[in-house]
Amino acid sequence: MADERIWTAALLVIGDEILSGRTQDKNIAQVADWLNRQGIRLEEVRVVPDNEARIAGAVNELRSTYDYLLTTGGIGPTHDDITVDSIAAAFGVPVIVHPEARWILEDYYATRGGVTDARLRMARVPDGAELIPNPLSGAPGVKMHNVYILAGVPSIAANMLAALDGKLEGGRPVVSVTVGAYAAESEVADLLRETEAAHSGVAIGSYPFSKDGRYGANFVMRSDDGDLAERTALDLQRRLQDAGFEPFPGGI
Amino acid sequence: MADERIWTAALLVIGDEILSGRTQDKNIAQVADWLNRQGIRLEEVRVVPDNEARIAGAVNELRSTYDYLLTTGGIGPTHDDITVDSIAAAFGVPVIVHPEARWILEDYYATRGGVTDARLRMARVPDGAELIPNPLSGAPGVKMHNVYILAGVPSIAANMLAALDGKLEGGRPVVSVTVGAYAAESEVADLLRETEAAHSGVAIGSYPFSKDGRYGANFVMRSDDGDLAERTALDLQRRLQDAGFEPFPGGI
Repeated sequence: MADERIWTAALLVIGDEILSGRTQDKNIAQVADWLNRQGIRLEEVRVVPDNEARIAGAVNELRSTYDYLLTTGGIGPTHDDITVDSIAAAFGVPVIVHPEARWILEDYYATRGGVTDARLRMARVPDGAELIPNPLSGAPGVKMHNVYILAGVPSIAANMLAALDGKLEGGRPVVSVTVGAYAAESEVADLLRETEAAHSGVAIGSYPFSKDGRYGANFVMRSDDGDLAERTALDLQRRLQDAGFEPFPGGI
Repeated sequence: MADERIWTAALLVIGDEILSGRTQDKNIAQVADWLNRQGIRLEEVRVVPDNEARIAGAVNELRSTYDYLLTTGGIGPTHDDITVDSIAAAFGVPVIVHPEARWILEDYYATRGGVTDARLRMARVPDGAELIPNPLSGAPGVKMHNVYILAGVPSIAANMLAALDGKLEGGRPVVSVTVGAYAAESEVADLLRETEAAHSGVAIGSYPFSKDGRYGANFVMRSDDGDLAERTALDLQRRLQDAGFEPFPGGI
């Protein structure tokens, strides 16, 4: 298990609307969750503005550091949608109109006013790219080597992820098991540290909450060995009970 | 105006819980919004795991690239809270117990069971750091040169930001003015491009929506010249009306 190949990914979120605070990002959490189900670890996220040099720079750094790079945002028909151009620049290739993407758009817009120049922008891809199906709104996502270019609208990104389900090579998903207790983090810090030390191969995260005026925390065991995560959770639960802490439902 | 100094910042979000998809980040949007009110542009966000080398590497890259670096997460009392140690490592200084932070914690915990070793962890700072007040839960944030170390719990981070209000040197905030219309983005792409080209110094972002089965988009004019943003918005509104698009309330 220890020498099993670990697959890694980064996510690049592209858009002034995230950095200005106008839009609350929802893609980080859904991409993280999806990647974990594929057995791929999300190791880094970056958010950059709608700027070709900034996008291309981040793409080149991240695609060479991790097995996969996913991007969200900037693939619509308007002037501020510069993701495809920026990624083509990163790869040093021209932008072309993908024949299949053109057919998809012509079909989709046949009953919706026809394909215009603006709409045809959504058929542009870096030369050498493949398409990612998008049953929701016609315009496909784009796969360029190990870079997966997804829409910024979360529901459309979700559809593109669904189309990619099981298509990326991955390893074992990380299993998370949660134990909750009405315990202030500072009261259980030693107990947590000891529990983690007693179970090699599992990481325990501690996340405080305040509910109805009472303090508590959720403790999350993470491991790619599900049995180990379960055993550690049971051990922690027992230690918390022995120390007199009331369980918080929502744990195991 | 054009040669006015622009102040920039990055945000480093620290935590396995964001990268695993367990926790939906809420700090990016609130930090972005707060920075803009200080007249500081958020130019980049990164999310990294609870790993000292990864945190220290990102801190050194970002603090030297931007005027300010803010971090969220990893400053609690448990073993997975390694932000202070990682930032001390980034600066090449030891971690010390800050005398004033110790007094604050002794005072806060006087009626809450007293200061323990675990709680005292929250008084640890990189040598040379100052404190950021935290009226909510005692444990202060930390300022190390141009790095501002904030809590990960959004309500506590918000309190620390409030304590920093007006304390960071900044320039003119970017003003955003929104115009909405029931228009598919692909129908107004040319119109948007022409409007942006006609008003130098303003950027127009286009953000599609689907509401009650109808497609539309919000168009956001952004500029550090509020009058220019307003004039551009009025011009765009007129162009959209002339083209026959129904306004979407929520714009100006």
